[in-house]
Amino acid sequence: MEEKSIETLGEFGLIDHLTRNSKQFSSSTHLGIGDDCAVLMANDEEHLLVSKELLLEGIHFDLTYVPLSHLGFKAISASISDIYAMNGKPTQVLVGLGVSSRFTLEAVDSLYEGIHRAAAMYGVDLVGGDTTSSVSGLTLSVTVLGTVAKGKITYRKGASVNDILLVSGDLGRAYLGLQVLEREKAVFMANPTIQPELDDFDFLVKKQLMPEARKDVVEVFAALGITPTSMIDISDGLASEALHLCKASALGCVLFENKIPYHEDVVLNAETFGLAPLTCAMNGGEDYELLFSVSPIDYEKLKGNPHFTPIGYFTDRHVGCKLQDNQGALHEITAQGWRHF
Amino acid sequence: MEEKSIETLGEFGLIDHLTRNSKQFSSSTHLGIGDDCAVLMANDEEHLLVSKELLLEGIHFDLTYVPLSHLGFKAISASISDIYAMNGKPTQVLVGLGVSSRFTLEAVDSLYEGIHRAAAMYGVDLVGGDTTSSVSGLTLSVTVLGTVAKGKITYRKGASVNDILLVSGDLGRAYLGLQVLEREKAVFMANPTIQPELDDFDFLVKKQLMPEARKDVVEVFAALGITPTSMIDISDGLASEALHLCKASALGCVLFENKIPYHEDVVLNAETFGLAPLTCAMNGGEDYELLFSVSPIDYEKLKGNPHFTPIGYFTDRHVGCKLQDNQGALHEITAQGWRHF
Repeated sequence: MEEKSIETLGEFGLIDHLTRNSKQFSSSTHLGIGDDCAVLMANDEEHLLVSKELLLEGIHFDLTYVPLSHLGFKAISASISDIYAMNGKPTQVLVGLGVSSRFTLEAVDSLYEGIHRAAAMYGVDLVGGDTTSSVSGLTLSVTVLGTVAKGKITYRKGASVNDILLVSGDLGRAYLGLQVLEREKAVFMANPTIQPELDDFDFLVKKQLMPEARKDVVEVFAALGITPTSMIDISDGLASEALHLCKASALGCVLFENKIPYHEDVVLNAETFGLAPLTCAMNGGEDYELLFSVSPIDYEKLKGNPHFTPIGYFTDRHVGCKLQDNQGALHEITAQGWRHF
Repeated sequence: MEEKSIETLGEFGLIDHLTRNSKQFSSSTHLGIGDDCAVLMANDEEHLLVSKELLLEGIHFDLTYVPLSHLGFKAISASISDIYAMNGKPTQVLVGLGVSSRFTLEAVDSLYEGIHRAAAMYGVDLVGGDTTSSVSGLTLSVTVLGTVAKGKITYRKGASVNDILLVSGDLGRAYLGLQVLEREKAVFMANPTIQPELDDFDFLVKKQLMPEARKDVVEVFAALGITPTSMIDISDGLASEALHLCKASALGCVLFENKIPYHEDVVLNAETFGLAPLTCAMNGGEDYELLFSVSPIDYEKLKGNPHFTPIGYFTDRHVGCKLQDNQGALHEITAQGWRHF
């Protein structure tokens, strides 16, 4: 048996390990660890949603090419995406900031410009936080709160066999944008007189630097009277998220390679980076689109909606989680999330 | 005019600066930045309280002498103290953890042992968080949630002239404990064969490494039917906290040097470190006691209670914030919190 270590456990295994003995003391805890947000009792009509992200320089972002205002915006978007993934409405954020002495007030102002811009866009209030110095680098911690009507809350669990799996938007752009930025950084490091060539990659780079959480999707669900049967946001790649939904719902799934939606810039540029668009979608990340399922009846209301693409369906768990390729062959879906460790 | 920089603004000035243009979008925000917690609408009877702390290695703790299980316990205590400072009851915590590859699974287990122990002691649930690697050092971010009955919530504002200022417990121990640990570290660094001498400083070192938030104080208030007129937890030293209450309540105050409560170990040992007990209490920090005020009528219910010491009273704001020394002379109270920057 392999000895347990942080490396062998991986991110998700470590969380399971550290929280395996958690006891419940508070009657207001409805759901703890295991979904996009914790779910707490608020009042008779609504649940309270809470989620937390920790973003560290050198791990989650590289300030060589990430402008601070974009980083502030992205930190809020990435956090709020977890509220939308529960079909909720974000209401407040708290921001913890650690900055070393190499950051000027102008730099921190720029970061907060992005934070305030995102807060205004999502209609949330910045209600608190903590500001401290750091011995190295920039640390950002974002807590987001939101609410959801009890009858509308959408968990990762809850899907049934034959429910249709859909994604919002298109996939793989953020990951390919990261490759563009990394390439231009390497060119710049080798010769600082060469200016980065980013003009042709606007849709890729913008999706990586300044992703928008899908507020509109939750609004469409409300307008059409749909409550998805399961949902998760795509922060770690489609493969990882599909596995999370299958595990939580105790189901299998079949996804179709030829249904996965791509922006034309992903199709045009992936090969230049030695990547297939499929790889960018399945194993990339940070698209912050929503992966969700609806019943076959509700699917009729979404058919042809330009916001969404049906990409597969849930099966009995014994089928496993499969990707059907363009030749009709089935492949096991595997993923490990981001292996930070 | 001095140019604005992070150094000249200081921690509190920076927070004011960064949040000066905050707009309110959500109807559920009752109070944003400016007290120990943000206050949100929960239901007809209760407010929801939220607070966030960011703890960085090399700034907030030194793992040379801080055992990881103590660090986990202290991180939860320090956060929960903010809920008690609003007269609330903590209900849930979320923990963000960044660890570099020098930390083993056993080390992280030890940290979480302290987190779980504190959670059990305060009766809160660990409901979420985020776990990531870090390029250097340990990063801990704690978000705490709690509730408080609408009629019982205690802000920093709300005190009136002649309200009595009291503190729980004794002051200065945590700061003197830090001096003991720093001294033994210096001895150890000079000669690693010398074992640290900590046995005589148990009450000091324990208060620094493993402070307990004053759950019992809030319970005493409930039992006696008292709602303080203002309250804050003492994380940055008595001077800083008294100034916060005066500013928020738009009042002045007089504190009496000879009323400030000390543990005998502070009285015995302060001089060894070239410190006065008064300095440890006023400008030290991390005692996590509560500073609060009550009306003269409610004060009758607290008189002689061994948990509390009356140390002064609120005055008209034109008096300023004063410390009366043992000779009867008045001194302006000054403080700047922890100047991390």
